Amino acid sequence: MRCRKCSNKAVLGIPRHHTAFCGTCLTDFVSQQVMRAIKEEDMFTKADRVLVAVSGGKDSLSLLDVLHRLGYDVAGLYVDLGIGEYSRLSKSKVERFTQMRGIRLHVHQVLETEGAGINDLSDLIHRPACSTCGTIKRYHFNRTAVEHGYAVLATGHNLDDEAARLLGNVLHWQTEYLKKQGPSLPDSLDGFAKKVKPLFRVAEREVAAYAIVNRLDYIVEECPNAKGAKMLLYKDMLNRLEHESPGTKQMFYWGFLAMQKTGSGQRLSMAENDRAILQPCLKCSQPTTSEICGYCRMMARAQTV
Amino acid sequence: MRCRKCSNKAVLGIPRHHTAFCGTCLTDFVSQQVMRAIKEEDMFTKADRVLVAVSGGKDSLSLLDVLHRLGYDVAGLYVDLGIGEYSRLSKSKVERFTQMRGIRLHVHQVLETEGAGINDLSDLIHRPACSTCGTIKRYHFNRTAVEHGYAVLATGHNLDDEAARLLGNVLHWQTEYLKKQGPSLPDSLDGFAKKVKPLFRVAEREVAAYAIVNRLDYIVEECPNAKGAKMLLYKDMLNRLEHESPGTKQMFYWGFLAMQKTGSGQRLSMAENDRAILQPCLKCSQPTTSEICGYCRMMARAQTV
Repeated sequence: MRCRKCSNKAVLGIPRHHTAFCGTCLTDFVSQQVMRAIKEEDMFTKADRVLVAVSGGKDSLSLLDVLHRLGYDVAGLYVDLGIGEYSRLSKSKVERFTQMRGIRLHVHQVLETEGAGINDLSDLIHRPACSTCGTIKRYHFNRTAVEHGYAVLATGHNLDDEAARLLGNVLHWQTEYLKKQGPSLPDSLDGFAKKVKPLFRVAEREVAAYAIVNRLDYIVEECPNAKGAKMLLYKDMLNRLEHESPGTKQMFYWGFLAMQKTGSGQRLSMAENDRAILQPCLKCSQPTTSEICGYCRMMARAQTV
Repeated sequence: MRCRKCSNKAVLGIPRHHTAFCGTCLTDFVSQQVMRAIKEEDMFTKADRVLVAVSGGKDSLSLLDVLHRLGYDVAGLYVDLGIGEYSRLSKSKVERFTQMRGIRLHVHQVLETEGAGINDLSDLIHRPACSTCGTIKRYHFNRTAVEHGYAVLATGHNLDDEAARLLGNVLHWQTEYLKKQGPSLPDSLDGFAKKVKPLFRVAEREVAAYAIVNRLDYIVEECPNAKGAKMLLYKDMLNRLEHESPGTKQMFYWGFLAMQKTGSGQRLSMAENDRAILQPCLKCSQPTTSEICGYCRMMARAQTV
């Protein structure tokens, strides 16, 4: 297999685009898809300070790498979940990665601030680990971005992540989640950071190939809590369809975005909707739909701090 | 495993309902689900003449059997597609089935009326066999129902069929098809029969068990043209999810129906929509959105008659 752009030996075939790329052209392809995502979805400009949430995995480190190479003003945010060896290893990868590139890194230590690691917190409040983890991460992603004055918070969700999430939302007809699902959520009110997903045009295997080709030192293991997660099953299903009909995943997610935009204008009115329903949490001042935000209610139940 | 109703030996576990049934109680269960479907979706009453489209497979023969046992005024319609041994065998099963029960049977012979079997017709017009077959069957289902004065045309689509079709429509965001997908489509104007799917509450394996328990002599082979069909892949995917989380299929399809009803009232306004866009075909007078209907255009291209 030869690269369709320069005829060098290809490292990855991309059936949905009827193409194949060598390492250099794949890197260009991923960069171009990221630039297109940033532009089309009005994510940020080179004048904006961008906070990238990094887990140490291939997606978030690739995103940080692409944005840094493209000359964006980026910093990293690592939330140390306190999940034993997995957290120790991923943290060291993130620290080395940012140090080598001279990128500023914010670190939030769950063990210190929340008084216990994710698994102990989950046990204390009788909730699944992934749900506890989601609440804590979303909370600190937003809070760090707002408190340090970043224009936007970027996460490494790729096309596979977004398509799998969409499938889950559709299978259960989560209409509220469907309204909010998109690659660029505006900063609807004070204290609520803009959130973007610049990798939403890039498939998981393309990000993985980018990370390998560019020798990014990422943590290969999945989070030990993710085993058997429904999202992995959805991804697997979509990969089977993609194998039979290349382009299915992209058509599914992009088709949804196109419908959102032209259809009822839901995404356009979302900022106003947020303004109507969000208010500052009485305890921590972060935006919430109730008097006390989900994070503060969770911490009150855990009683660890 | 014991029947949860009568403690006899169970023949089928139904995890999504946390239950299991013996043959007799399974037969009751299927009948009750059909009665509930007929009532909730306002399909027909015992005063109505119902035409049931039968292929000779487990679903359509089970439906005819249930409706006949329940005392509905039913007749069968068999469309002989002229697909060699498969058609010969399925036709003989249908004829024996209806004769034994004294049910009137209409037979439409594609070889005679359309001048060639489905496979030859498909070759002539360069379209996939399943698409040609769909056009011809839909056309004669409607035409036979209208010309013979049946109140409604019933097909044997089960929960798995409808959920798989919904998944296909959602993956491609076929919004026009999504609007029209439902278990009961009204007779929106003259020449357009009401269409219903009384098995939409019953899963495929439950229908199969009903057919076996009640010793229905159905054709076990799938249509030879169906091999590799996308619908089989969708069904397989949904079955995997169903295995992990019993009830997924039902939640997906019923959730969609509930949303359709409460949401934008699309199903309610569909009849009016049809009236606005349908007109009689200039050649055959059947309802169509163009001047000449899809069936007549297809037959003009085939030039077999």
